[in-house]
Amino acid sequence: MYIIAVYDVNVDRVAKMLKLFRRYLTWVQNSVFEGELTKAQYAQLKQEAEALMDPAEDSVIVWHVRAESYFERETLGEEPGETGRFL
Amino acid sequence: MYIIAVYDVNVDRVAKMLKLFRRYLTWVQNSVFEGELTKAQYAQLKQEAEALMDPAEDSVIVWHVRAESYFERETLGEEPGETGRFL
Repeated sequence: MYIIAVYDVNVDRVAKMLKLFRRYLTWVQNSVFEGELTKAQYAQLKQEAEALMDPAEDSVIVWHVRAESYFERETLGEEPGETGRFL
Repeated sequence: MYIIAVYDVNVDRVAKMLKLFRRYLTWVQNSVFEGELTKAQYAQLKQEAEALMDPAEDSVIVWHVRAESYFERETLGEEPGETGRFL
């Protein structure tokens, strides 16, 4: 399944969350990730994210799209992502 | 069509982009929006966003999903969004 994930976490946890999400998904914009994962891979990512975050303060939103063919992706302006420009 | 949109823009333009995107979509997390738009509504949003942003510096990524039934949405931790917590 295709995953689009965004997070908004306390600044103390940003670096660890970034490192975790980059292990599983492609980093496309500040706190935004996407990519193809199996159910097992996603379950693992979810478990690790929940272990890292403070549920009262941090937020992760995940859209599971059944297949890449079900959506079109469009970029306006610059295509940031894996340019190391973000923390 | 169902739209998921994220932006990363220069701090000088954040307030205007937020105001623009909130006119068309639901604000679900810092710089993240989603909602159902017609093609005409999306074309209008895109035109206004392109007029506001500096394409060399700012980035908007949009996923057009054919229908809400094609994805599942999941939230880990807090459900921020329209809580006025963000600029």
